[in-house]
Amino acid sequence: MDPQPGRKRLPRKVREQQMLDAAVQVFSRHGFHAASMDEVAERAQVSKPLLYLYLGSKEEIFSACIAREADRLVNAIGSAALNRDDDPADRLWHGLTAFFSYVAEHRASWVVLYQQARSQSDSLAAQVARSRSEIIDTVTELVRQSMESPARGGDGSNYAALRRESAAVAHALVGAADALAEWALAVPGEQPEATARRLMNMMWIGLERRAKGEGYHAPDGPAGTDGPAAPRP
Amino acid sequence: MDPQPGRKRLPRKVREQQMLDAAVQVFSRHGFHAASMDEVAERAQVSKPLLYLYLGSKEEIFSACIAREADRLVNAIGSAALNRDDDPADRLWHGLTAFFSYVAEHRASWVVLYQQARSQSDSLAAQVARSRSEIIDTVTELVRQSMESPARGGDGSNYAALRRESAAVAHALVGAADALAEWALAVPGEQPEATARRLMNMMWIGLERRAKGEGYHAPDGPAGTDGPAAPRP
Repeated sequence: MDPQPGRKRLPRKVREQQMLDAAVQVFSRHGFHAASMDEVAERAQVSKPLLYLYLGSKEEIFSACIAREADRLVNAIGSAALNRDDDPADRLWHGLTAFFSYVAEHRASWVVLYQQARSQSDSLAAQVARSRSEIIDTVTELVRQSMESPARGGDGSNYAALRRESAAVAHALVGAADALAEWALAVPGEQPEATARRLMNMMWIGLERRAKGEGYHAPDGPAGTDGPAAPRP
Repeated sequence: MDPQPGRKRLPRKVREQQMLDAAVQVFSRHGFHAASMDEVAERAQVSKPLLYLYLGSKEEIFSACIAREADRLVNAIGSAALNRDDDPADRLWHGLTAFFSYVAEHRASWVVLYQQARSQSDSLAAQVARSRSEIIDTVTELVRQSMESPARGGDGSNYAALRRESAAVAHALVGAADALAEWALAVPGEQPEATARRLMNMMWIGLERRAKGEGYHAPDGPAGTDGPAAPRP
């Protein structure tokens, strides 16, 4: 928060962040095509020539918004999930809580990342996809650690299947979290911790049983209780 | 499959379906903008004027593709999940297997629906969003039935919380299924039933325990074991 918003001679770095703050708001409200750079300049209390001088074209400004917001999201989740001694369940809990809190507190950022960047050019969509991959990699590692329990035999003999199963779980978890975040934004009074708990209740206690070698028995065909499903021919 | 592909005087309905088949392939391969209507006409073995006469503009052809493919997907899942006497777990299992099988067998259809339609105009994205809503509604109902167990007390006193929890679970499940389908397409040898089993193993056995009133205990704050989380102030 800048206590002197009218002040003219702020450092360029500070000005740039203010411009990006304004741009995220404007893009999230109007979408890329309808967003007006006049409005961005006005909200940031700079002239439009200064906006373009500092941040480049409209496309470059949008790209800078995505880069900054994606970094913030990845950092928020990563620092909550990884810099702790907790067991995997608690780390996942902290990661999910950080994610849903981020979306609730930075709604504009989420709208730009989730709804808008994906529908723009290939290069912007690829930028968002890279951030998503970073998150999925983090989650895959968490899941792999949690599945490598003594009960499952962590001797590496089944390493490829474990890696595949961990990646599948991570994709499912991130997909579920994305969809739940969208849902939560539309539900009045839904708190980030409540959303995180819903997902933990759905998935974690399933994963826990899975780590013990239990599984769902399909009504026809072979039962699925023999560890991570091996690739079939 | 048309045994006489060179035959000229096919009924209009049949021709239209052949044109849509060709269009889905071409759109999935090149994307909406780069897709060539010459290639669609060539694949469908019709002239370009006939293609436009029957199906309208490129935008209208794309829209018709989405409408047909989305209907097929919704019907495949709905008929697998609903027209059975199975218990909720088995219905979910059949629905998921139908979904992953559909994606594996109709890869081009999925690419158009999932990757391309969402990145096109608002009206096309809305068309896909409506199909997704239909699927989510079906899943919400399945989940609600499975949660309304005697152990939880199905007397309707907690109906709003149950409905909210069912909707959350359905959004998470569909988001997880979408993400897993994308993942599975990139994994050689991954079979639809194996993918469905992965998701059942993750989520169903969690939901089962949830239906008995169990839940994840967060490391700080109140535990989440008191049925579907009530909305907080």
